[in-house]
Formats: sequence, C-alpha cells, structure tokens
Amino acid sequence: MDGGPRWDLRSVSTEVIHVRMLIHAGAGNLSRDSDLGRLEPQMLEGLRHALRTGHDILRVGGSSLDAVTEAVACLEDNPLYNAGRGSVLTREGRVEMDAAIMDGRGPRAGAVACVGTIRNPVRAARSVMEHSPHVLLVGTGAEAFARDHGCTLVSPHHFVTPEMYAYWSSLAPSEDPRLEVSAGGTASKRGTVGAVALDQQGNVAVATSTGGLTRKMPGRVGDSPIPGAGTYACNRSVAVSFTGSGEHLMRSVAGHRLAALVEQRGLSLAEAVTVLLGELTAAGADVGLIALSPQGGWCIDFNTTAMLRGVVDAAGTITSAMFIDGPVRRQAG
Amino acid sequence: MDGGPRWDLRSVSTEVIHVRMLIHAGAGNLSRDSDLGRLEPQMLEGLRHALRTGHDILRVGGSSLDAVTEAVACLEDNPLYNAGRGSVLTREGRVEMDAAIMDGRGPRAGAVACVGTIRNPVRAARSVMEHSPHVLLVGTGAEAFARDHGCTLVSPHHFVTPEMYAYWSSLAPSEDPRLEVSAGGTASKRGTVGAVALDQQGNVAVATSTGGLTRKMPGRVGDSPIPGAGTYACNRSVAVSFTGSGEHLMRSVAGHRLAALVEQRGLSLAEAVTVLLGELTAAGADVGLIALSPQGGWCIDFNTTAMLRGVVDAAGTITSAMFIDGPVRRQAG
Repeated sequence: MDGGPRWDLRSVSTEVIHVRMLIHAGAGNLSRDSDLGRLEPQMLEGLRHALRTGHDILRVGGSSLDAVTEAVACLEDNPLYNAGRGSVLTREGRVEMDAAIMDGRGPRAGAVACVGTIRNPVRAARSVMEHSPHVLLVGTGAEAFARDHGCTLVSPHHFVTPEMYAYWSSLAPSEDPRLEVSAGGTASKRGTVGAVALDQQGNVAVATSTGGLTRKMPGRVGDSPIPGAGTYACNRSVAVSFTGSGEHLMRSVAGHRLAALVEQRGLSLAEAVTVLLGELTAAGADVGLIALSPQGGWCIDFNTTAMLRGVVDAAGTITSAMFIDGPVRRQAG
Repeated sequence: MDGGPRWDLRSVSTEVIHVRMLIHAGAGNLSRDSDLGRLEPQMLEGLRHALRTGHDILRVGGSSLDAVTEAVACLEDNPLYNAGRGSVLTREGRVEMDAAIMDGRGPRAGAVACVGTIRNPVRAARSVMEHSPHVLLVGTGAEAFARDHGCTLVSPHHFVTPEMYAYWSSLAPSEDPRLEVSAGGTASKRGTVGAVALDQQGNVAVATSTGGLTRKMPGRVGDSPIPGAGTYACNRSVAVSFTGSGEHLMRSVAGHRLAALVEQRGLSLAEAVTVLLGELTAAGADVGLIALSPQGGWCIDFNTTAMLRGVVDAAGTITSAMFIDGPVRRQAG
C-alpha cells in the first residue's frame, strides 16, 4: 500500500466463506522487514492454534462462549501477543491487563481490568459474568474474586517476557505523557487479542484481552473490558472485538455503535463497518475489528497496514494473514 | 401509585419549559414515611443549591462543562447523597467511588473509578479528560494522577458519614453475594448523582458521580464512569445521566443506546426514552434518567416510585421533586 490509500474498501475481495469464528491479535502500521514483521510465521501459527481450539469446541456443538474463552486463553498464554504473558508494561514497569467477555444471549457481560496476577484474564471475566452480581471488577478486588472462583493466580513476573522488558527499558521517558503513550504505542505494535464466534444454536459471543498501551499511566483502563466499547455481542445485531486506539473506541462507544448502525439504522454489517471505520479514520484512530452476525455475516477490516487476523469456516478450513495485501480482509453479510 | 402501574407515561404532564440544566440524585422504590422519605425537604434543598450553582455559570455564558462539574461537586460535598461524602460502603466497609464527565463536543470523555481519597471524583474525571491521553483511570493510579493535577485528596474517613456507617454495620452479610448486593441496594436508596446542561453556545455536557452499591464487591465498577453506559453526551444526539441498576445499564449500553435511538433510528427524545425505559423495565431494572438535547428537548423519567430530580430554566426558575406524583416527570422534544 506504499503511496496508496491506507484504507480502501475497493481492494476488498468478495469470495464467500461460511465462518464459524474470527480472531485477531492487533492492528498497526508496520512493514514486513520490521522486527515484528519478521515474526509473521510464528504469529500466524499462534492464531491458527487458537482457531483450531475454538473450532474443536464449535464443531461438536459446543457454545460460542466456550469457543471464544478457550481461543483467547490460548493467545493469552502465548508470549507473542500483548495479552496475558507477553503483555506490555506501564510507565512504572508493571503489567496491568484488561479483558471482557459477552454472551449474545441476554446479552450478558463480564470483565476485569487493571489486573496483574490472573494468568488468564478472560477466564476471570467469564467468572465475573457467571458468578457475581457485577459486570466489571478491577484491581485487587478482581484478583481476589478470580482466586475465589478457581482462576489460576501467578506471580506478576509470569507476564513479563525478556523481549517486552528490554523494549520497555529502551524507551526514554517523556515529560509529556500524551506523547509518551503515543510513541510507545506505535513503536510496540504488539496487539490486543480477540475472538468472535457463532455456534450451532445460533448464538454469538465475543472475548477480548489486552495488556493495553506501552507506558500507559498506572490505572489506565482501555476499551477492551468495556461492554459496548472494544467488546460487544448481542444476538439482535452483531458480535465485535476491536483493537487499536482504545481511547477513540471508548469515546465513540464503537462496539455498540456498530450494533446500532445495524439494529437501529438498518444497515448491513458491511455498510455499518464502512460508516464506523470512516468515522474512526476521520478522528485519527488506528483501528481494526472482527465482527460476526447471528446470520453468519462477517467482517474483518482495519485502517492500518497490518492486522493479525484469521478465520475458520464450518469445514474447519483456516485462513490467516498479517499484512494488508494478504487474504481475509473483506466484508460480507 | 399504590396498586397502579409503576411506570405509566400517560400520567406525564406536557407543559413546556426551556431548560438549561437537569439534575438527579438517585431513583428507588420508597414511600414518604420511610427514613429517607422524611429527608425530602433537605434533599430537595441540596438539589436546588446545585441547580443554582450550575445556572449561575450558564446565565453569564459559561460552559455546560463547567456547569455540570460544579453542580455535581456540590452534590458530592453534600453528605445526603451517595457520591463523594456520604457514599455507601463496600462489603469490606470501604468507600469506592466512580465518576465520569463528557463534553458533547468531540465528544470527549474522562472518568475515574474505584477511588477512595479524591474529595471530588468529578473534578478528577475532568482532569483525566483534559490532561491525560486516557479516558478512564482506576484505583491508586487515578488517585496519584488526581493529586498531580491539583485535585484535593482527603482521608478515606472524610467520605464515611455516621449514618452510612451505622447502616452498613446493621446489614447481615449473606453467603450469596448476589442476594447481598440486591438487598443492600434496595434497602439503602441513597442514589447516584448526575447533571446535564446546555450552554448558550449550544453544547451539551454531562457528569455523573456515585459511591455505587451498598455492600458491593471490592473493585466493582458500575455504569456511572463508563462513557456510553450511565453517562453519555454528544452534540449530535443527547446528553444523558442514569441512576439505578448499574449492571443492567452496562449490559444494555444505555447511554449510547438512547443516543442511537435518536441519531440512528430517528426517534424523538421522548420516543427514544419510551423505548429504552420499556426495554430496561422488561429486563427488571429499576432506573431513572435525565436527558437533554442540543435543541433543548429534555426528559426526566424513571420506573420507580421516587427519583430525586430538578430542573432550572433559562429564567432561573427551579422546580424539584422526589416522588412520582410530584412535578418534573415528563418528556419533551
């Protein structure tokens, strides 16, 4: 896309795939010969492993909720992505993770934010949804709840990989925290992970998990754990998981906005994504999304040069890609 | 309303008031001869003081953002309401407060959650919006940021009134946290506070602040600090602040849903409130809302027997009420 438009839906292919599950692991502007670009084979293999895990659940009649939980847990345990082990570090050199899950039935939601000792934040988010009267728990309260409900707690050091610590150490602190987050965020490129799935009962579900922004302020909570912002699912409209400029996604309430464009304005999913990505691009946000409707319509799109993404269809065929010229960047439904 | 429907829009009056600002301090099912019902005169006087404070800013051309900030700060400092001083206590006997502010221009948003030492959480939320790259900060990270940006920090004991401590002490812990929160929440009745305003420049703004639910789990974050849930403002649609069953409001993304019913489906504000309150009532939520459009349309409505509420019009005339048979429960615009 060098020299061309960064975001051009005319380049989108149009083949039809009956999708069971979509997955992402972040979007950003980077090239194939960057440090991260050279990790493409390993990062795509991690996505395929997560897709296989989810598909194994869906093909035997399991729930979309189980599929997104297990797929995202795979990505959290893989140190290549910015979620669970491998998360980026705050200004103070700590890992603070956010995660959310939504069940299109209801809809129901659960989330945790600003947690540093829960091995799989997505499992804690699901426990909040299923075993508490609340939707969002943060900090040590969330960690105590997770421990009491069977989630595995680990040392904060579990999450810090040598690569991410070295990267954090190499960054010069800035006097202006606005610049600092911005610079760190685009230099790092390691992305939020998420999954959406549709099960044989016709229910959609979504899960998103992240370490957030490099050198973010302590206590910062982004879009991922906010139902309606970076994570949203409802059987009346769509399941969607975002990655990218979290604060833009929070201000625009991006997840529910996509659902409202479908449910309230009556747009197709493809039209709704075009409208929303247009608004976010105009606002200066770098974003990507995966979306799946209860009718099987789906979309992966982004306004950056790369987005780690993959799909698995009903036959178990997996397609994955990292750069804008790869497959699986299209709209249907 | 004894024996009659709890929520009946046919009872709504229809006089037109040119409103500058709306305010609320919680909604619940209670009677005039309850402990809280007998505090009606003092609680309405606190609302009127906050409305006068906001109006004094708006009438000289001040911003809606300043008006909602100062009005909500008044209510936070008043121990009669469940926000700032006078907040309810968690299961562990602590105060954990949430607040958010949104500026209809942009829109922009800032919020803090799970904070226990910031005298006026609404001022901290505004600092997050204006002086950080983030939208939501929680816990000690939020407190450190607030301190560094000139907000007054106080001892956690500042917030705990003798009445609220005695009330907390009187509650028997339950083995089932779902029942515990539910029982505490309806027994307490002290409500979240919020304000929406429209300034002479045509900009809307909203602020909401709360101590949350009595005996909530430590770390619980409710709808109030979530842009799009309990707090939302956009010059394209509406400014709205909610009170009531926070988890229902989070799952339904109530604030952005109201905006979408206006902006995407094309309903009037009155129609949109009817649809949304119908959905929330069907889901079993006890809720109230104040909403104001950039065109001056406004609405206060609730599906409980009481909601502390007030309006100030362009001439400075203040009307306030607590029970369902009082004035200022209607729809316009």
